[in-house]
Amino acid sequence: MGKYQIVVDAMGSDGAPEVEVKASMEAVAEFDDIVIKLVGKEEEINKYLTPHDRIEVIHAEDIITNHDDPVRSIRRKKEASIVKALTEIKEGRSHAIVGAGSTGALLTGATLILGRIKGVSRPALGPVVTAVNGRQMVMIDIGATSDARPEYLVQNALMGQIYSKVMTGTEKPTVGLLNIGAEAKKGNELYVAAHKLLAEDESVNFVGNVEARDILNGEVDVLVSDGFGGNIMLKTVEGTALAIFDILKQELTSSFLSKILTGMLRNKLRNVKKRLDYTETGGASLVGVNGIVIKTHGSANVKAYRNAIKQARLMTQKDVVNRIKEEINS
Amino acid sequence: MGKYQIVVDAMGSDGAPEVEVKASMEAVAEFDDIVIKLVGKEEEINKYLTPHDRIEVIHAEDIITNHDDPVRSIRRKKEASIVKALTEIKEGRSHAIVGAGSTGALLTGATLILGRIKGVSRPALGPVVTAVNGRQMVMIDIGATSDARPEYLVQNALMGQIYSKVMTGTEKPTVGLLNIGAEAKKGNELYVAAHKLLAEDESVNFVGNVEARDILNGEVDVLVSDGFGGNIMLKTVEGTALAIFDILKQELTSSFLSKILTGMLRNKLRNVKKRLDYTETGGASLVGVNGIVIKTHGSANVKAYRNAIKQARLMTQKDVVNRIKEEINS
Repeated sequence: MGKYQIVVDAMGSDGAPEVEVKASMEAVAEFDDIVIKLVGKEEEINKYLTPHDRIEVIHAEDIITNHDDPVRSIRRKKEASIVKALTEIKEGRSHAIVGAGSTGALLTGATLILGRIKGVSRPALGPVVTAVNGRQMVMIDIGATSDARPEYLVQNALMGQIYSKVMTGTEKPTVGLLNIGAEAKKGNELYVAAHKLLAEDESVNFVGNVEARDILNGEVDVLVSDGFGGNIMLKTVEGTALAIFDILKQELTSSFLSKILTGMLRNKLRNVKKRLDYTETGGASLVGVNGIVIKTHGSANVKAYRNAIKQARLMTQKDVVNRIKEEINS
Repeated sequence: MGKYQIVVDAMGSDGAPEVEVKASMEAVAEFDDIVIKLVGKEEEINKYLTPHDRIEVIHAEDIITNHDDPVRSIRRKKEASIVKALTEIKEGRSHAIVGAGSTGALLTGATLILGRIKGVSRPALGPVVTAVNGRQMVMIDIGATSDARPEYLVQNALMGQIYSKVMTGTEKPTVGLLNIGAEAKKGNELYVAAHKLLAEDESVNFVGNVEARDILNGEVDVLVSDGFGGNIMLKTVEGTALAIFDILKQELTSSFLSKILTGMLRNKLRNVKKRLDYTETGGASLVGVNGIVIKTHGSANVKAYRNAIKQARLMTQKDVVNRIKEEINS
């Protein structure tokens, strides 16, 4: 195919399709080796699109929202943008998909339509988060598989290592296990068993448990968890950050500091937020399925969305699907 | 016994026994209805103690540290301060214990020596955390029982309701379930089953799931979780707060803001920290055992330690153990 073919579900974000269209236009301007296919309501897409020889529009009449049941709607709504977008990959016309809509629909759709890579028990979802020390960490799984078995966590580690190498260029990424204490016996049954398997597996560069308190310190390149625990962790980081900014704003405006100073500080706070915001490095990637699948926030702006497209390009270029296939089946 | 008898493990905190002794002296000065028994190395305790008719010293030769195996050391080290302190309650001479040492040793010791309240399947540990909107929330369980069953979470809710009533005076506390989404079917098997049981139980004032992202918004009075998930959540809050303060300090000192302003801001940051610091309202209480057990941070200062003693007094006064006994067996 020559160029990297990226499908964009144009109807997913809060600002759809404007955000998706603008991000796509910026992306084709930045990278001459990609083709973008915008899938969604043609008429609405065309409102924002300046025609470009590397942007195609694929009309899709329907949309799957957060209110739809993921499994049912993926099976029934054949005209939904996300179903048509995934079918592009399934049928070999595209390599990667970027979406900002219902996470459940994207994960379910990717699993049902693209299927799992042979040998992968369960797909896993992971963003790249920048730690306080600047290290870019892959957190995997943060929500694809809620009921995990110990061996799934080992696969998360193996897939996470490849993901980390591709995203950060780290030669031999280190792997840590999210946990409630440093010792091997800490955690619930799942985590105690996973720790043992990770320590025994020679393909995993395992360095031990990482306490939840230390996750943002950047002690490892890959932080492994089950989907439930990982989601609790990542959402708690987001919620705590928002809470602290709220309290700080209350403290500042009720204080001696003038409005002007508060305004100046706002920039600093924005920088802090940026550092913790994973959309700065792309989206969360669903690994373990037959295709590159990137989920970004519903609230993504053009820049965040463009970062997600950039990540889709990089993961396609580095042939992540085949590398995972080889690693899991070696 | 007339007065509330509170045992203090004098050897637990990083600043032991000075912190414990000073906090005890402040507490007896504040409350004339308590007697404190300081358990630990008499000679060291006496260095800081001004004799008082409501402070006793019980000599204990040994200490259990974080490096000791909790179960083994509780069974073997009969002369350890924590074992002697718990024995005071077991033998009916005291009502409550406050400790800042090894969490594992305190939980194991309380369970083995005091035993569980009849009908309680597993004890649960919970702090009282102040949310952004000022609401004081009981988070339960944040680490006592890592492998939970759905019915344990219902007991956590029942115990949490009593705990919340006592600590905040709320007449009919609301209960939420920590989870990864709002819908009843969200979560792993444990949480889906727990949600169902909580919704069915008429004794529980259940209002639904609380997403990890919203835990600090103060939507409920009691936030129920299993010990593993709850610990991941609470430690992530702590870690994120520390990370944000670190980044913010880097941002501020590298900026146009003069050192003086940064110094002024430090007070504001301290206020934010205070709001999120549960030692402001006391310690974490282990509920479900035959006695009041309060665990405070190893890094507790005199004020935080005194808050934990204050909480022990209040929970004794409100007869929490018997109220849980009645609730669980009704």
